[in-house]
Amino acid sequence: MDNNIAENSKNDLQKIVIIGGVAAGPKITAKLLRSNFACQIDLYTEEDMISYSSCGLPYFIEGLIEDPQRLIVRRPEQFEEKGAKIHLNKRCTKIIPEEKKVLIQDTKSGIIKEVFYDKLAITTGARPIIPPIENVHLKNIFTLRKLQDGINIKNKIKEKETKKAVIIGGGYIGIEILEAFYKNDLEVFMIEQNPHILPIFDPEISDMIKESIVDISNGKVHIITDDSVVSFEGKDKVERVITSKGQIIDTDLVVIAVGVIPNSEIAKDAGIELGFKNAIRVNNRMQTNIKDIYAAGDCIENFHLVSKNYCWIPLGSSANKEGRCAAINISGQYDAFPGVLGSAVTRYDGLTMSLTGLTETDAKKYGFEVITSTMTKKDKAGYMPDAENITIKLVVDKRLRKILGAQAFGSGDADKRVNTVASAIMADQTIDEFLHLDMTYAPPFSTAVDPLLSAALVINNQIFKS
Amino acid sequence: MDNNIAENSKNDLQKIVIIGGVAAGPKITAKLLRSNFACQIDLYTEEDMISYSSCGLPYFIEGLIEDPQRLIVRRPEQFEEKGAKIHLNKRCTKIIPEEKKVLIQDTKSGIIKEVFYDKLAITTGARPIIPPIENVHLKNIFTLRKLQDGINIKNKIKEKETKKAVIIGGGYIGIEILEAFYKNDLEVFMIEQNPHILPIFDPEISDMIKESIVDISNGKVHIITDDSVVSFEGKDKVERVITSKGQIIDTDLVVIAVGVIPNSEIAKDAGIELGFKNAIRVNNRMQTNIKDIYAAGDCIENFHLVSKNYCWIPLGSSANKEGRCAAINISGQYDAFPGVLGSAVTRYDGLTMSLTGLTETDAKKYGFEVITSTMTKKDKAGYMPDAENITIKLVVDKRLRKILGAQAFGSGDADKRVNTVASAIMADQTIDEFLHLDMTYAPPFSTAVDPLLSAALVINNQIFKS
Repeated sequence: MDNNIAENSKNDLQKIVIIGGVAAGPKITAKLLRSNFACQIDLYTEEDMISYSSCGLPYFIEGLIEDPQRLIVRRPEQFEEKGAKIHLNKRCTKIIPEEKKVLIQDTKSGIIKEVFYDKLAITTGARPIIPPIENVHLKNIFTLRKLQDGINIKNKIKEKETKKAVIIGGGYIGIEILEAFYKNDLEVFMIEQNPHILPIFDPEISDMIKESIVDISNGKVHIITDDSVVSFEGKDKVERVITSKGQIIDTDLVVIAVGVIPNSEIAKDAGIELGFKNAIRVNNRMQTNIKDIYAAGDCIENFHLVSKNYCWIPLGSSANKEGRCAAINISGQYDAFPGVLGSAVTRYDGLTMSLTGLTETDAKKYGFEVITSTMTKKDKAGYMPDAENITIKLVVDKRLRKILGAQAFGSGDADKRVNTVASAIMADQTIDEFLHLDMTYAPPFSTAVDPLLSAALVINNQIFKS
Repeated sequence: MDNNIAENSKNDLQKIVIIGGVAAGPKITAKLLRSNFACQIDLYTEEDMISYSSCGLPYFIEGLIEDPQRLIVRRPEQFEEKGAKIHLNKRCTKIIPEEKKVLIQDTKSGIIKEVFYDKLAITTGARPIIPPIENVHLKNIFTLRKLQDGINIKNKIKEKETKKAVIIGGGYIGIEILEAFYKNDLEVFMIEQNPHILPIFDPEISDMIKESIVDISNGKVHIITDDSVVSFEGKDKVERVITSKGQIIDTDLVVIAVGVIPNSEIAKDAGIELGFKNAIRVNNRMQTNIKDIYAAGDCIENFHLVSKNYCWIPLGSSANKEGRCAAINISGQYDAFPGVLGSAVTRYDGLTMSLTGLTETDAKKYGFEVITSTMTKKDKAGYMPDAENITIKLVVDKRLRKILGAQAFGSGDADKRVNTVASAIMADQTIDEFLHLDMTYAPPFSTAVDPLLSAALVINNQIFKS
C-alpha cells in the first residue's frame, strides 16, 4: 500500500482515476490523451479487457461476426503506448472522497490497495437485472452484457442438440437476441410480462411490430405477452420454464433480458447523489455532487430534452458524448452536454424499428396535449422495384405545435428518417417549420413528398381543422 | 370564342386556370379539390398526359420499370371525377392580365380560343437546353424530359445494334442516364465541358465521385472533362461526335443533358417579372408581381435559405411544396413557403451522392468565412459485414459556427444523413449544437459516434485550435 502512495505522488501530474472500461471510460481516456492536459491516467476495470462493443454481441451470436475480438474497439496497449495505465481485473470496492482515494481490489488475488486521485471518473456502466425466479441459477440460463456472455451463448447455440430457446423480456436486447436465434434456426419463445413487447414504443406500434416479427418468422418465433416466468425446471441445467399463467415451455437455453440497472452502489456508498432509477446524478458538465468526481455512461442519469425531466436511458451513443464532455471538463476546459432524446434503433430480419423523443404515451404522461399522425407509405418512389413500406408516427404538441417525437418501423428505410426528426426536435422546431424541410429526393431514395413530410402535413391539416 | 366566354361565366364559382400539367399544376389541382374552396379548375397542358414522374425516366430506361405508365402519378380522370377539367394537347400562347384571360391553342387543330380566369397559376416547368452544336438535329440525338423522350431512348438502346452512347453533360441527369446505359451494357462516353462532373459538388468531391464511378464500371464508362462537343457527324442519324479538343467518338446515340431553362417566355411577354436565370419571380406566397397570377414548380425562382440569395434550383420535391403553397393562397387562406436548401441526391450503381445547403465553393462565393471537414468512415459498425464507406464533407461558418452545408457520397448510407443535416440547417443550428445530436445507434445502422457527428467534432476541434 505504501508503495502505491509513493507511486501516486512521484510527480506533479494531475492524477485522473477512471473506474470502468467499456465505453465512457475509454472515451474519457482517449480524449484526455489527445488533449494538451498534463495528467496521469489510471483506468481500472474488473474485466479482463476494455473498450468493446457490447451492442455488437447479438450479431456475433447471430454469426455475422466470426471472431469476438472484432468487437474490441481499442486494446489496452493502444492506451498504454500513449502513457495511460490500464489495470485489468481490478475492481473498485470503495470511494473515499474525503481522502480523495479509492480502494481497488485485484479480482484474482483479492488484495486491496489504495489509489489516490485528483479527479475521479465513475464509468461503471450497468448490469442486467436478474429477477428472483426459482432455480435461476441452473445451467444454460444466461444474460447478455459482457463479451464472455456472448461467447457462452454462442457456444450453447452451436451445440447440435440446441433446438429451442426462451428469451425473457421483449425489449431491444430481447429482439436482437431473437433475431440471432431465429437466424440460427432455433425455435424461440419470447416472454414479455407487459401487454406489449418493446414498451418504449406506443402500444399500437409495438403490436404492429410484433405482428410483423411473427409474420416474418414462419412459425419459428412465438411471442407471449402478459405473462411472466415463475420458475425454471431441470436438473443441473434448465429444461423447462413455467409461466405465471401455467404455460410449460421446454427449452435448451434461456436468456434473461428484462432490463438493466446502473452500477451505482459504490457511488452511493461514497455519498454521491443518485437520481432516477438510482443512476448517478450529474450536472451537464458530468460533475457529481462531490467535487472532483465525475461520472459518465450507462451509470448516469440523463436529462430528457423534450420532457425536460430526468430519466435513465443508457445507450452507447450517449456514453461517447458524455465521456467526451467529462474529459473536457476534467481537463479544465468547459463543455456542457445538453441531454438526450432517447433516439434508438434496432432491427429484426430486415424490419427496422426506430424512435426519438417522446411517444404519445409518454407525452401524455408528461402533460402535453398531443396530436399525432401515423402513416404507412413507400420509402421510395412506388414504381421502384425495391420500394418498401415504412410506418411513421409523429407526435406533436397541439398548442405549441412543437415536434415531440417520432417512431418509425418497416422493411424500408425507417431509421435515418427518425434522425431527421431528431435534428428538428433538438432545434425545437414546430411542425409548420418542419413540413417545409427541403429533403433530398430521387426515386431510388424517397417519394417526391417524403413519408416524413406526408406525416407532418397530415398533422398540419388536423390542427387546422381541430 | 363567344361560346367559351359564355361557358366561362355561367356560374359564380372562382375560375382557376392552371397552365402546365407535370408536377406543380396537378399538385395545385389536387390541393384545391381537397379544400372547401368553391372553384372551377381548368388545367391546360400541351402534352397528352399529366402528372408523371420525369425523375423516374432514367429507371425506366435502365429497365427497373417495365411499363412507362407506372410513372404516371394521377390520370386526368382522377381529377375530372372530382370536378376539375383537364385539357390535354392545349398550349397557352399568351397571357393577357389586363383582361384576365389566356389564349389557348389546340396543338392538333391549331385553333386558338380565349379562356378567362379569376386566378391563374403558371406551372410551365422547364425544358432541356439544346446547345448550338452542328448537326444537332440528326436522328438518335435525344434529350430526356418528357415521358416520350424516355420511351424513345429506351427503344433505341433496346435495338441489338446499339452498343455505344455519348452523354453530353455530367450533371445529375447525365449520371442517371449513365447508370441506365451502363446497366444495359453500353459503352458510354460522358463529356462534360467543366473541369469536373457534378459541378454542384465541391471539385475534390466531384473528382472522388468521378473516380468511384469509373472504378465501378470496369472500363465500360469513360468520363471526359474539360472538353465539349462541337459537331455531330453522320448521314441521317448520328454516327460520331467531334469534340473541341479534336476527339472523334463513334456512337449509336447521344443524349444531351447540359441543363434546363425555365419555360417563362409567356410570363415575360405578359409583363411578369423574371428573376435568376429567367425563372419567374414570386414572393413566398407564390404570387407573381401581377395580381391574381401565381406560379410554382420548375419555372419559378427560389429563395436559398442559407445564402439568403435568389437562385434557381428546379426540383420535384420543391414543386410539390410550392404547389401546395400556391393552392392554399389561391383559395384565400394564408401560407408561406420559406425557401430551399437545394437538397438533392442521385446514385450510380450502388454509389450514393447527396448534398444540402451550400458547398464550400458556393459559401465562399457568398462571402462566408468557412471551415470544413471531410471524413471517410464506415456507415455501420466496422465489424458488420455489410459496413460500407461514406465520405461526408461539412461546411460551417467559422465565425457564427452555423452549419452551411453537407455533401456525402459512398456505397454506404450517404443520403438520409444529409437530410439530418438539412434539418439542422433549416433550424439554423450551430456546429456546437449539432454535435450533441442524439442520433439512433445500433451496429447494423451506424457507428456509436455517427460519421456525421465525427465530422462535426473535427470541425469543433479545428475551431478551438484556430
